[in-house]
Amino acid sequence: MSRAVVTVSGGLDSVTLAHLLFADGWDLTLASFDYGQRHVKELDYAEACAARLGVGHRVVDLRSVGALLSGSALTDDGVDVPEGHYTDESMKATVVPNRNMILLSVATGLAVAEGADVVATAVHAGDHPIYPDCRPEFISGFEALARRANEGFAPAEFSVLAPFLHMDKASIVAKAAELDVPLRDTWSCYRGGERHCGRCGTCVERREAFEVAGVTDPTEYETVAV
Amino acid sequence: MSRAVVTVSGGLDSVTLAHLLFADGWDLTLASFDYGQRHVKELDYAEACAARLGVGHRVVDLRSVGALLSGSALTDDGVDVPEGHYTDESMKATVVPNRNMILLSVATGLAVAEGADVVATAVHAGDHPIYPDCRPEFISGFEALARRANEGFAPAEFSVLAPFLHMDKASIVAKAAELDVPLRDTWSCYRGGERHCGRCGTCVERREAFEVAGVTDPTEYETVAV
Repeated sequence: MSRAVVTVSGGLDSVTLAHLLFADGWDLTLASFDYGQRHVKELDYAEACAARLGVGHRVVDLRSVGALLSGSALTDDGVDVPEGHYTDESMKATVVPNRNMILLSVATGLAVAEGADVVATAVHAGDHPIYPDCRPEFISGFEALARRANEGFAPAEFSVLAPFLHMDKASIVAKAAELDVPLRDTWSCYRGGERHCGRCGTCVERREAFEVAGVTDPTEYETVAV
Repeated sequence: MSRAVVTVSGGLDSVTLAHLLFADGWDLTLASFDYGQRHVKELDYAEACAARLGVGHRVVDLRSVGALLSGSALTDDGVDVPEGHYTDESMKATVVPNRNMILLSVATGLAVAEGADVVATAVHAGDHPIYPDCRPEFISGFEALARRANEGFAPAEFSVLAPFLHMDKASIVAKAAELDVPLRDTWSCYRGGERHCGRCGTCVERREAFEVAGVTDPTEYETVAV
């Protein structure tokens, strides 16, 4: 089996992705990014995932990049984290300009340096309305450009694996349950407090995904569901 | 006139590019990158360029990324800087995996955050044989992907400007002379010593460019030309 670099934030989707690839027999390196997100505690869950699977974990310090791209509710203390549903217009406040292109570019550099054939990302269908850099046409374009950028240095069949690209979050929760992924040990909340707030877009989306999937939600929230 | 983010290393090509765009009336922000290159002193020349033009300068700390991508002669003290001609096979040792895709992705994020329409890069024809991420098909592919990644957040006409893409380095020196760019205040040498070494690939290329352009070379080298 070949080697893959998986971008893992520590959230439900990317931790499930790491477990899925591990179960499929891939030789893995997890890559996480500190871009100054206020929910930086998510990285502890990525670290725990790597330890659980017994694979390597690289945390890349991109705080200088995050500082440049301030103005997003995810990185700028002056901007409030919006509440409500994830697909609302208000969630545009959580866009960090060009984030996925930056993170996948760094992951690709790491893959080339390590001789990996694959970069894997947990983008899913629920991300598409808000984040243009999570859409299928971005992922396929990125793969083509990454091959071109590393011609002669990366394997010709270098590819970007995004198995959740056309799945919604509820299907990911169902997949996680099937794989026995300990979803209690994942972090979603954009606020990054002691417990999941239960009200921000990503908490609302997380709760809903468990409900729709019919899987018991092990998450402790600050507030009861609305 | 519109706003452009220009990636400026402090070398001859990118400093000339900044002067060219400034002369053309662009509102500029210079962006430089510390990726742990041993010739990090080049950044002082980028800073001097910004001061001379009276424009903003952002230095992005990507040392954590450089550490991940080690194995290149540019970032790894364990790998010797090759001597000889820039287009030699040996220059492959100076490839930092996916470097341009990473740097241009960060510059694009900055452009979107600042409301700039353009990212400008000084890649030139002499880079093409060695660096796949400096070739015309990479630049056009990058522009298309950057538009896709930032749809709804960047101007629809967002573009990547690479006016030297089909010029060789001698033509850039000629252009610099025409614009009165103080080329003494630029840095090329990969070794990053007190003076330009005169022997590494980029020094050899620099010397040759002045000679071919018929422009007096103001650079102080450690060694005389071979």
